[in-house]
Amino acid sequence: MNRIEALAAAVREEGADALLLTGEVNLIYVTKTIALEGQCLIFPNGEAVFVTDGRYTETAEQQLIPLGFAVITRPQATALYEFLQTLLREHGVQKLMYEDDVLTVDEFAVMRELLSISFQPVRARIRKLRANKSEEEIAHIIRAQRIAEAALQRLLPELHIGMTEREAAARLNYYMALGGSEKPSFDTILLFGENTSKPHGVPGDRALQIGDFVLVDFGAVYHGYHSDMTRTIAFGSATDEMRKVYETVLAAQLAAQAAARENMLCCDMHNAAAEVIEAAGYGQYFTHALGHSVGLEIHESPVAAPRCNVPLTRGVVMTDEPGIYIAGKFGVRIEDMLVITDGAPRNLTQFPKEFTILS
Amino acid sequence: MNRIEALAAAVREEGADALLLTGEVNLIYVTKTIALEGQCLIFPNGEAVFVTDGRYTETAEQQLIPLGFAVITRPQATALYEFLQTLLREHGVQKLMYEDDVLTVDEFAVMRELLSISFQPVRARIRKLRANKSEEEIAHIIRAQRIAEAALQRLLPELHIGMTEREAAARLNYYMALGGSEKPSFDTILLFGENTSKPHGVPGDRALQIGDFVLVDFGAVYHGYHSDMTRTIAFGSATDEMRKVYETVLAAQLAAQAAARENMLCCDMHNAAAEVIEAAGYGQYFTHALGHSVGLEIHESPVAAPRCNVPLTRGVVMTDEPGIYIAGKFGVRIEDMLVITDGAPRNLTQFPKEFTILS
Repeated sequence: MNRIEALAAAVREEGADALLLTGEVNLIYVTKTIALEGQCLIFPNGEAVFVTDGRYTETAEQQLIPLGFAVITRPQATALYEFLQTLLREHGVQKLMYEDDVLTVDEFAVMRELLSISFQPVRARIRKLRANKSEEEIAHIIRAQRIAEAALQRLLPELHIGMTEREAAARLNYYMALGGSEKPSFDTILLFGENTSKPHGVPGDRALQIGDFVLVDFGAVYHGYHSDMTRTIAFGSATDEMRKVYETVLAAQLAAQAAARENMLCCDMHNAAAEVIEAAGYGQYFTHALGHSVGLEIHESPVAAPRCNVPLTRGVVMTDEPGIYIAGKFGVRIEDMLVITDGAPRNLTQFPKEFTILS
Repeated sequence: MNRIEALAAAVREEGADALLLTGEVNLIYVTKTIALEGQCLIFPNGEAVFVTDGRYTETAEQQLIPLGFAVITRPQATALYEFLQTLLREHGVQKLMYEDDVLTVDEFAVMRELLSISFQPVRARIRKLRANKSEEEIAHIIRAQRIAEAALQRLLPELHIGMTEREAAARLNYYMALGGSEKPSFDTILLFGENTSKPHGVPGDRALQIGDFVLVDFGAVYHGYHSDMTRTIAFGSATDEMRKVYETVLAAQLAAQAAARENMLCCDMHNAAAEVIEAAGYGQYFTHALGHSVGLEIHESPVAAPRCNVPLTRGVVMTDEPGIYIAGKFGVRIEDMLVITDGAPRNLTQFPKEFTILS
């Protein structure tokens, strides 16, 4: 089923007369096109209208008409809601579904006042549609991931004593951009030594030393789709404790990977990793959820977290990223992206993850 | 007046018992600290509480206690709203001000259900406070701007025939990161030749040729504060038409700069530039608003646009960025950031803007 038809079905099921999309990410989802501005209306009969302005008319017509959209250009002199009101009247819309997870309270108040019709929240319906990725979407995520992997491959031999976290992170982002990434998937986390114990640390002036762990959590974006990977690599040498913690995290990561499949509860995927870490005596140092879904946004639902009681479904792309963080010493996190199937998950990450000492 | 006290005054004026801040940008504004997660409560008596979790306790205590905050760490096992409810009860809060321009409709619905008290939208109050920048804030914007200028200075001599827009943009972002920028201020626009006629073009595979305009619209971020600058520079050679359009845009940019001051209506600042472009016969090619405010967000209010009838106030940092875009040929945009004063505005941009041919 194509995306327009899936949304039209949602409109029919909710008994609404149309769905209005204005959120950037939802617009990429339905139009399969990035860097376009406008609003989209989906009607119960599967009709789809994209409203844009003169800056985007050419691109919109090229990209969207083949997908079944009518493209309408709003004149510069006509205010948005005035234009939409006319369109909605022409289509006899009395009840409009809106993105209650996108519009802010004040934006919705303005819309409600200007369009005098009734409203129906879309609730999490679009997020649920977006959770199960098509092969086309997975191909974009894989492309983003390969860009990220190639960038890390290029960076590793350039790491040297005295290089700062900030410089290494800047270079990694640069290599991803040269490789075709539209932007970093999120603020790149690249930390050295004792800083690796901060799960959300920000790269700074810490200089690389022999015996440091290098922790890098990063991703690329391709066609709007994000990738996400973490690797932790020893620089020059490693203590037995570093090795032991690393092997524990890797065992936990592999345990969740082996367990994850359709119909398993998300919390149980988390637990599969958490149990390995607890059994090794590091339970108190695993302080975050195991994973999150990835797609047009870096953090999507569902999440592999202790309180998430929904089942995994086929096509969900979930990160598997356990960690152990010992404040003042070091942290280790290892992260792959998995596609949930009815059997063993498909691992989208190819970068090696065995314990490595860079020399 | 400090920021906590300004917000406490807003709570008193609205007759509320507390203000809850959850938006990332508002939290940076009130805490003067980036990369911190949590929630902030401001009470009418000027008391301020920052609620965080174990990942951020150390940073929060270091940064926020000197500013007058109490820092409270929420235990991992306690759900956020449960924790907030207890806090609000302890403070006798019956009526809570909330960020109606930050919370989405569904987020607010959840909050309203879980905290059984009454709510008062903060409306645009915080945005208005944020509009007038302090010297400390302006210093951060200047620092971001100097990082951006140094990066462009470094890039220009490296431009060469055959280099793609994507590569040049990637390098510019890299140089900003090395210079200390936290991230690009927005997706860098860097375009060559006929692509420069797209005000919101995306850098692609177009290769640089002799006779192209190079248009670059970009900025850095420092301590959360954004910079924004556009320059259009000829590469190798230029036609008389390119020169004429350039001089028209520059005259328009300077006209708005000369006119802008406290109490002028924002639309009149726009008009000061638009009139110059119209008089030169290019009116139809200036297709966007003259400018926008800049601060913790790249687009803030007020805006220098035809329909913005509010007066400029002291401390607003407004971009002055007229453009002429001739489809299929080229576009020119020149942009500086101006601080509004009671006299001539203070120009935060030092990069030269006279017509230049790179050779």
